[in-house]
Amino acid sequence: TRNPVSISAGKNFQLEDVIEAQQFNRDILSATFEVAREMENIEKNSLGSQVLKGYLMATLFYEPSTRTRLSFESAMKRLGGEVLTTENAREFSSAAKGETLEDTIRTVEGYSDIIVMRHFESGAAKRAAATAGIPIINAGDGPGQHPTQALLDVYTIEREIGQLDGIKVALVGDLANGRTVRSLAYLLAKYKDVKIYFVSPDVVKMKDDIKDYLTSMGVEWEESSDLLEVASKCDVVYQTRIQRERFAERPNLYEAARGKYIVDRGVLNAMQKHAVVMHPLPRLDEITVDVDADPRAAYFRQAKNGLYIRMALLKLLLIGW
Amino acid sequence: TRNPVSISAGKNFQLEDVIEAQQFNRDILSATFEVAREMENIEKNSLGSQVLKGYLMATLFYEPSTRTRLSFESAMKRLGGEVLTTENAREFSSAAKGETLEDTIRTVEGYSDIIVMRHFESGAAKRAAATAGIPIINAGDGPGQHPTQALLDVYTIEREIGQLDGIKVALVGDLANGRTVRSLAYLLAKYKDVKIYFVSPDVVKMKDDIKDYLTSMGVEWEESSDLLEVASKCDVVYQTRIQRERFAERPNLYEAARGKYIVDRGVLNAMQKHAVVMHPLPRLDEITVDVDADPRAAYFRQAKNGLYIRMALLKLLLIGW
Amino acid sequence: TRNPVSISAGKNFQLEDVIEAQQFNRDILSATFEVAREMENIEKNSLGSQVLKGYLMATLFYEPSTRTRLSFESAMKRLGGEVLTTENAREFSSAAKGETLEDTIRTVEGYSDIIVMRHFESGAAKRAAATAGIPIINAGDGPGQHPTQALLDVYTIEREIGQLDGIKVALVGDLANGRTVRSLAYLLAKYKDVKIYFVSPDVVKMKDDIKDYLTSMGVEWEESSDLLEVASKCDVVYQTRIQRERFAERPNLYEAARGKYIVDRGVLNAMQKHAVVMHPLPRLDEITVDVDADPRAAYFRQAKNGLYIRMALLKLLLIGW
Repeated sequence: TRNPVSISAGKNFQLEDVIEAQQFNRDILSATFEVAREMENIEKNSLGSQVLKGYLMATLFYEPSTRTRLSFESAMKRLGGEVLTTENAREFSSAAKGETLEDTIRTVEGYSDIIVMRHFESGAAKRAAATAGIPIINAGDGPGQHPTQALLDVYTIEREIGQLDGIKVALVGDLANGRTVRSLAYLLAKYKDVKIYFVSPDVVKMKDDIKDYLTSMGVEWEESSDLLEVASKCDVVYQTRIQRERFAERPNLYEAARGKYIVDRGVLNAMQKHAVVMHPLPRLDEITVDVDADPRAAYFRQAKNGLYIRMALLKLLLIGW
Repeated sequence: TRNPVSISAGKNFQLEDVIEAQQFNRDILSATFEVAREMENIEKNSLGSQVLKGYLMATLFYEPSTRTRLSFESAMKRLGGEVLTTENAREFSSAAKGETLEDTIRTVEGYSDIIVMRHFESGAAKRAAATAGIPIINAGDGPGQHPTQALLDVYTIEREIGQLDGIKVALVGDLANGRTVRSLAYLLAKYKDVKIYFVSPDVVKMKDDIKDYLTSMGVEWEESSDLLEVASKCDVVYQTRIQRERFAERPNLYEAARGKYIVDRGVLNAMQKHAVVMHPLPRLDEITVDVDADPRAAYFRQAKNGLYIRMALLKLLLIGW
Repeated sequence: TRNPVSISAGKNFQLEDVIEAQQFNRDILSATFEVAREMENIEKNSLGSQVLKGYLMATLFYEPSTRTRLSFESAMKRLGGEVLTTENAREFSSAAKGETLEDTIRTVEGYSDIIVMRHFESGAAKRAAATAGIPIINAGDGPGQHPTQALLDVYTIEREIGQLDGIKVALVGDLANGRTVRSLAYLLAKYKDVKIYFVSPDVVKMKDDIKDYLTSMGVEWEESSDLLEVASKCDVVYQTRIQRERFAERPNLYEAARGKYIVDRGVLNAMQKHAVVMHPLPRLDEITVDVDADPRAAYFRQAKNGLYIRMALLKLLLIGW
């Protein structure tokens, strides 16, 4: 019914749905981050706001993602709102019986004020938003988008480093399959004088579409196989997990890839004092646990920032700026 | 402990449990619908009532039914109440260990003020109500009853058509296995000058018990194989899904039955201007999607009415009239 | 980060986590029970307290235990708090991907104020408490501890019998595998002049570690195979379920064990008027259903006491004494 990606800038931004990272330009990112900062204060200084009292959020998860689900539900409850939850909507009796996503959305929108949806199919969130008369937030649609993760990543860089213009970021690990690093590269291109380093095993290199996009936006990038050298130059080392599920029939390639670039004390020692290590979590052994105690290990703060970003988006979609 | 089906009429109705459609006579239906109308206003005009603040509802679902569960949970939360939820109580550790339903109910009633139960066995809700000292709502017990669906169907007809006396209703599709159409026929018999048309493939015809009951109540009914002709005469065309799960070992019978009576633009064109199409959902292809945009497509409004009926019942059971 | 088992006595007890029954000495038990009594009044006399308004509890269950989960969630909601729930965290996407418990805890503690955890591995709760900066309650960790069950058992004896010093308790059934009876024996040793009778099939006898402990604490105990004679002397007959899952490859041993000591009308007739039958539930046929109506059948009151104990612990951990 509405254009799911429309955000009109100006005195009053209008955020109708959150479907993909491309919706967010620099101004809207900046305004969103300002609200997220207010949310930090709300969460830390009082026992719960009542800003969203009387609002009902439905979490419609067609595949489980407990971390993301709990983060959204916590965000809603920290603002005084209520939640209807579905941990595994794929086994949803009606989906199993062949009901379309559109029919499910038309029903669930009758019971709630906003829908947070995770789906296994790329484009599902956009279809939901085209159907629904209430806001939809995409909490990941298969190989497609996961925009709130992208937002919290950029927010974390700003909070940790103090700026986004002029930063140097190393993207490490599985750059071919990780939608996280792809979205992050996309959003970083909105800032000035950014430099991106790609450090990854050959089998999971960053794809050309993102490289071409960065080039077209005037963003400097280079590929390197020397993690220590890159780490010494960067403000952010963004490590990712090599996803075993992507190597289904090639277990030996997986084993070769996963051990190649590890963030350990050696990498920390090479890093500058103000730099940080980030990771979208879950983490296996691509960051060793002895890194955790270092103040530059920012990944648990990053997870917490997901709460603030989601609080901000819920408030913006339900109440406005 | 109490008679689960007792409702005493008079100045103060007393609704103790909602177990089966037979509990509701014409007066109680009418009073319930009046409360449901108030609930429409509560839901539309304000951000949540606090009528049920401090009350706790347990949803005890022995088989998943996300639509029904979310509808009840939304109803409770829209009235300020709280919810304990169990998406799949059949895998309940204690049920799996052999605990009786009665023991489970005795435990759960200690944690809540009202129990909404869905079970795979006919009669389970009645057993629960006989055990519990708090109200039980039957949200479907196997091939047995699903009384809140029956109530919302009748409520929808009244809201859409403006009356129940004198209406003509076509029941279409799987009339043998659908408990929905059976309960609806039963309740419609409480009104005057009702005429019911049965339109169904031969393998899933309406059973004799309901036909005999209608005859005994003086309700006119007839069977027809001409959907277009019936549609042109009716106020309500109530379409249902042919349930594949009922044709386990007869897939070719299923295929023959499912395509036989489809509500499409042709049927819409035959229908009167004031008439409506209803469906209990989920819908597969027995109503084509090009029907959805027609104002006479009432099935999503019908789903929404389920919310108001459930809000009304929760209020009536916990607070009274 | 903190010592998970530290409770400092004195004017201000400090309860930081609830990990194992051994944390609780006689004074702290007594103080906890006093708060539980207040909770009975809160739950019975008003529609919900707001003591924990603004607090958020995460239930992180790595194996399902609906009874325990609902009990904790009801406790939190009865005090005005909110809940984030995970029915089956083992299928948690991140745990399935190999995330450590510690990483999961570091994430979830960012979204909540207290974590109630059930896990399949002994010691998991202690590990969680060592990591978390917020309180952890152990809701059962595999063959390890289930301290809130132990507390509610002792609380029930005090509520039913009026005292703990000088009582005679029969522990019946599976004494080898039941962590419940082991914890109960451990806690009873803190009281004076207690006498414990062990009545069990040979294959599931109480193990020597508990017997030795009781002896070292000066607690009298004896083994008996005469349930009727023991029942006639005791204040409490604590029956337990023979757990079939412990007899995986010895089904005939299970069948022999399960029918050996049944609490039925005959046992009731032998019992004193003030004595009670307890059971941690779920119950199969080791207590016959005709016992339920007798006022000495205390097991459903015992389940309800779990609510009060959990309300008390949540209040103590989040607000203090």
